Amino acid sequence: MATNKNKDRNSNPKAFRKKSPTTSELVQGILSGDIATLARAITLVESANSAHFQKSNEIIGQCLPHSGKSLRIGITGVPGVGKSTFIETFGTFLTALGKKVAVLAVDPSSSISKGSILGDKTRMGELVKDKNAYIRPSPSGHSLGGVARKTRETIILCEAAGFDTILVETVGVGQSETAVHGMVDFFLLLKLAGAGDALQGIKRGIMEMADAIVINKADGNNVEQAHLAKIEFTKALHLFAPKENGWTPKILSCSAIQKTGISEIWEIIKTYIDDKPGLEGIMAKRRTQNKFWLLQTIEDQLKQQFYQNKKVKIHLDQMTELVVEGKISPFKAAEKLLGLAKKP
Amino acid sequence: MATNKNKDRNSNPKAFRKKSPTTSELVQGILSGDIATLARAITLVESANSAHFQKSNEIIGQCLPHSGKSLRIGITGVPGVGKSTFIETFGTFLTALGKKVAVLAVDPSSSISKGSILGDKTRMGELVKDKNAYIRPSPSGHSLGGVARKTRETIILCEAAGFDTILVETVGVGQSETAVHGMVDFFLLLKLAGAGDALQGIKRGIMEMADAIVINKADGNNVEQAHLAKIEFTKALHLFAPKENGWTPKILSCSAIQKTGISEIWEIIKTYIDDKPGLEGIMAKRRTQNKFWLLQTIEDQLKQQFYQNKKVKIHLDQMTELVVEGKISPFKAAEKLLGLAKKP
Repeated sequence: MATNKNKDRNSNPKAFRKKSPTTSELVQGILSGDIATLARAITLVESANSAHFQKSNEIIGQCLPHSGKSLRIGITGVPGVGKSTFIETFGTFLTALGKKVAVLAVDPSSSISKGSILGDKTRMGELVKDKNAYIRPSPSGHSLGGVARKTRETIILCEAAGFDTILVETVGVGQSETAVHGMVDFFLLLKLAGAGDALQGIKRGIMEMADAIVINKADGNNVEQAHLAKIEFTKALHLFAPKENGWTPKILSCSAIQKTGISEIWEIIKTYIDDKPGLEGIMAKRRTQNKFWLLQTIEDQLKQQFYQNKKVKIHLDQMTELVVEGKISPFKAAEKLLGLAKKP
Repeated sequence: MATNKNKDRNSNPKAFRKKSPTTSELVQGILSGDIATLARAITLVESANSAHFQKSNEIIGQCLPHSGKSLRIGITGVPGVGKSTFIETFGTFLTALGKKVAVLAVDPSSSISKGSILGDKTRMGELVKDKNAYIRPSPSGHSLGGVARKTRETIILCEAAGFDTILVETVGVGQSETAVHGMVDFFLLLKLAGAGDALQGIKRGIMEMADAIVINKADGNNVEQAHLAKIEFTKALHLFAPKENGWTPKILSCSAIQKTGISEIWEIIKTYIDDKPGLEGIMAKRRTQNKFWLLQTIEDQLKQQFYQNKKVKIHLDQMTELVVEGKISPFKAAEKLLGLAKKP
């Protein structure tokens, strides 16, 4: 059977090649909420093929006026904290409320390690079958800048397709949290009970970014420990100055697996939207974020163009070696490399 | 008199214009420890005039093999903590031990606010008269990158001139501390007794960078409070993971004005040099720092070239406005501006 099929395909390849939809067909499909078209457009946006670049830019440009009407929630936490289960439970809770939920991910390691966060959709067995949810794994890409930018653009497409709640998952390592913090309205940090974990959070400055800290796995024998952790985190939060927008970060606990404490989290987020900072505060945050993305994209691109320059590639290692050995000043080496990049 | 002088000068300007020393004269002067020549070379390094750029690069290149033999100590703390008095007392203590001490500063605000740190040498009345000390105010410059780079280069010149201890002062605000941390062997954080101040340090991640925290003004009625602060800081330090090089940050107290606790600080620094991380550890740290300066300089320059591009200057504000209003995506705007910068 398979052999016959292949044979047929080979004998008349054009009959089997699906016609590429036009930009306007893609945009129409997205705006009508067609998931297959949305997925196709996201693939185009994520493509490293420069031929797709202009088309994807046009699609984003046309979707932009229809975007921005969702609530964007970032979710972070170290591996093992239960992010997948939490998103499964929280996402299902939201669709039951009538929300349309898109789940995206920022994971710069996904291109190397494969199958990292959201790579394996079976981790969210219930949500993946939910017709009001759309789950998209992290784009592959070598730099965090690229991965984050593509996710930021995917948010626009998902919003244009009618998703009103965007959950952006990220791994609790490196700078990906800062990137996700820069693209969401509300940033949720998942934690486990236990002192070691709490202190790690302080160390990397992530607690400062959180709008809420949720202690997960508050079930069974962990309930008492989760309660103690709540007290500890509340104390630790006092170390930080209040946020500019007037919001005081909240500490909660839940059990994603037992589906407890979930509605309390949603209540907190609703206070954030309805009360303070409120819609006006969220919009002000987004304006600042947009400026950040403009400058960030410029700087990422400048670096990328430089480090991908053929002459720079050839000489960078050697120059670095000379600098490390103290044979040439870092400034002289930089000057030489910048000179090489400028030559045609 | 003054009028006559000016008249003479105008009638024969060349007779009054001092001949510019050659690169090799400057380097010879520096290597022989001539302070006037050192000062002149630093002025050249700090110059924004592109005509001076190549000459200063040559000087640095020729001084480089004679540099690196000092101990580089960074000193930070918020305004009011007593940095000037501390440097005066500590510097004088060091010259009394036979050290040759150069005092530099990184203060990106100095070009705007004038007379900021080290701008007013009278703040260090004793040290400024000390023939074994050289005090240099912060270079002016609009970007932190530029100011920091120039200070980093000045360290090379001072070392070539025979200074064996370099104190780099910085203000306790913004990112200048990270820059100074990236150019010194030992980073000293000055603090005052009092909880508010301690917590501020945690917030900005500066405590993590410190190799020692010194509670200043431990005198008079403050002695008891300083003792309590020591306990508090010791507790707070436990929040952070030990440093990679095996060093455990130390908490000390002193009174710069009463000159107490100063030798204890020096003993701690000697342990750092002689024991752990030791010279090998310090050298490893410097190699990493050099790599950082190479990449940092490249990235600073790329940004500077971009933002100083005439076409970019004309369109940046307008594009930013469109992005903030959501009329164009940040990515599209970045693309347009990058396109403008590429055109000849």
